[in-house]
Amino acid sequence: MTRSSAPGKVYLFGEHAVVYGEPAVPCAIERRARVGVEPRDDATLRVHSDDLSLDGFTVEYAGSTDGKPDIDVAESLVDAAMGYVDEAIAQVREVTGEPDAGFEVTIESDIPLGAGLGSSAAVVVAAIDAATRALGVELSTAELAERAYQTELAVQDGQASRADTFCSATGGAVRVEGSDCRAIDAPDLPLVIGFDGGAGDTGALVAGVRQLRDEYSFAADTVASIGDIVRQGETALADGDVAELGRLMDFNHGLLSALGVSGRSLDSMVWAAREAGALGAKLTGAGGGGCIVALDPTPETETALRYLPGCEDVFPAELADEGVRQLE
Amino acid sequence: MTRSSAPGKVYLFGEHAVVYGEPAVPCAIERRARVGVEPRDDATLRVHSDDLSLDGFTVEYAGSTDGKPDIDVAESLVDAAMGYVDEAIAQVREVTGEPDAGFEVTIESDIPLGAGLGSSAAVVVAAIDAATRALGVELSTAELAERAYQTELAVQDGQASRADTFCSATGGAVRVEGSDCRAIDAPDLPLVIGFDGGAGDTGALVAGVRQLRDEYSFAADTVASIGDIVRQGETALADGDVAELGRLMDFNHGLLSALGVSGRSLDSMVWAAREAGALGAKLTGAGGGGCIVALDPTPETETALRYLPGCEDVFPAELADEGVRQLE
Repeated sequence: MTRSSAPGKVYLFGEHAVVYGEPAVPCAIERRARVGVEPRDDATLRVHSDDLSLDGFTVEYAGSTDGKPDIDVAESLVDAAMGYVDEAIAQVREVTGEPDAGFEVTIESDIPLGAGLGSSAAVVVAAIDAATRALGVELSTAELAERAYQTELAVQDGQASRADTFCSATGGAVRVEGSDCRAIDAPDLPLVIGFDGGAGDTGALVAGVRQLRDEYSFAADTVASIGDIVRQGETALADGDVAELGRLMDFNHGLLSALGVSGRSLDSMVWAAREAGALGAKLTGAGGGGCIVALDPTPETETALRYLPGCEDVFPAELADEGVRQLE
Repeated sequence: MTRSSAPGKVYLFGEHAVVYGEPAVPCAIERRARVGVEPRDDATLRVHSDDLSLDGFTVEYAGSTDGKPDIDVAESLVDAAMGYVDEAIAQVREVTGEPDAGFEVTIESDIPLGAGLGSSAAVVVAAIDAATRALGVELSTAELAERAYQTELAVQDGQASRADTFCSATGGAVRVEGSDCRAIDAPDLPLVIGFDGGAGDTGALVAGVRQLRDEYSFAADTVASIGDIVRQGETALADGDVAELGRLMDFNHGLLSALGVSGRSLDSMVWAAREAGALGAKLTGAGGGGCIVALDPTPETETALRYLPGCEDVFPAELADEGVRQLE
């Protein structure tokens, strides 16, 4: 048995604007997916998951890719999870030159699913790392990130960001600009994440921003301003200026709101965090619904969000310095 | 007895950015202050108000400027109201060349006080109009607006916008840019106003925007983008394109949020309006707390806001085509 974990991520700055060539800064958070792999004698792939869990419901399935798993949640979610594992193993077979490799794969994750926290990227990174090692092949982090990206690209019909998989593989804070991803310095960040239990329609949200940007010069300027915030944010990260990061996150959130990608529950969580004394708060990811990320070195934001109607889950999450981690 | 009324106003677009030379578009709303004036034989000024009312409490006072009125609300509020009337009458004495004119002044208003809806400007405009007429002098609308502006300037320690008094005097939609104010064409606007019962600290909010703008180029760009929205909004007003106005109001609200002048209750009202089907919604005025304005030709937004916790008052208010109105 080999077993690896990989972290989820939040966007500190720059989501949506990154689509138009602006830089963005995602960072890995200390919430992980763990994937254990045991080679089989045949080419079969079996996936076990005891806790692809989300506060309020649990995915439990054990099946092959041929049959339907025994589940009590939306089939599409399980299909999606199975799809990522299938494709990750396809990458493993290719990179190891073992097209007939079969595995027992066990997945655990404490990253809420479908919340925009990069749970699929974390599962893919951990799965590829564990399965290649099981076959005696050690990938470099860069190669692991690339294979994980190819996996997401295949599953998501050619629409994937390098940022999620790179961030999950390398850990820490990452600067993304176009196809260039690189690790950047960052201080300890007292991140608090609030989740409304929902998810926006990423495709529709991205299309909405595009429409605004095509129609209005001030919307294009707003996208460019997000890029400026990101550049300012890189300086604040390098300086370890957490208060400045908070101010920039607040501003970034306002510009995302202007671009139509915030939502009632997201704004409600952002305000609860700010009124609890957070240094800053913003939505993270595609928006519409899903998660916010706040900076608060005190327990106040977590407490405020815990009692906020409409906030389904809240947890503190330090910056994950380490990306993929070999557990056994 | 002469008696005049004048309307309050909302900002359709451009508050805060107007401070930096960008245009803004306030528009008069069909909520009015009514001021009745009866000349006295002496130089005394007595002010009666039965309903400078705000949902939940009522200012009642009758006193001279020498003594303290008999009241049950914050003294500062009454001092402020008295200050506006005093100074308006000082302008009347000057413009009519009757320095010893005295009056019984009766004020009624259905514009919530201190809500950023221009209640003081409306009282001042109506008072100057009624009192000059009582002395047989008829001011042009331009002169009335100027005298009302001078009144606010004197009361507010040199900090006043020409927009409020101009808009109240002339009615309709107004384009303000620097010291230039002019009436512009506008269609019927299905305005709905929600009030959280509070008020932001205008000085602190304006200072906050200035600080952001001085520190960050992207904040200066955001202010400039608000100017672009205003210009686009003027076209939409001229075209009578109410749906476009709504989209622009939504965007304007997001940029104001980025500049740090929205607030939890304002965002809550804005989202309630949008989810009720409003074509657009934004804060109006200085922000922090106070009012939002939404566009909704249906009763849905009014209903949604009426039942929203934290919304103290809600009312539909058509665009007031007429500014100051001579009642008797």
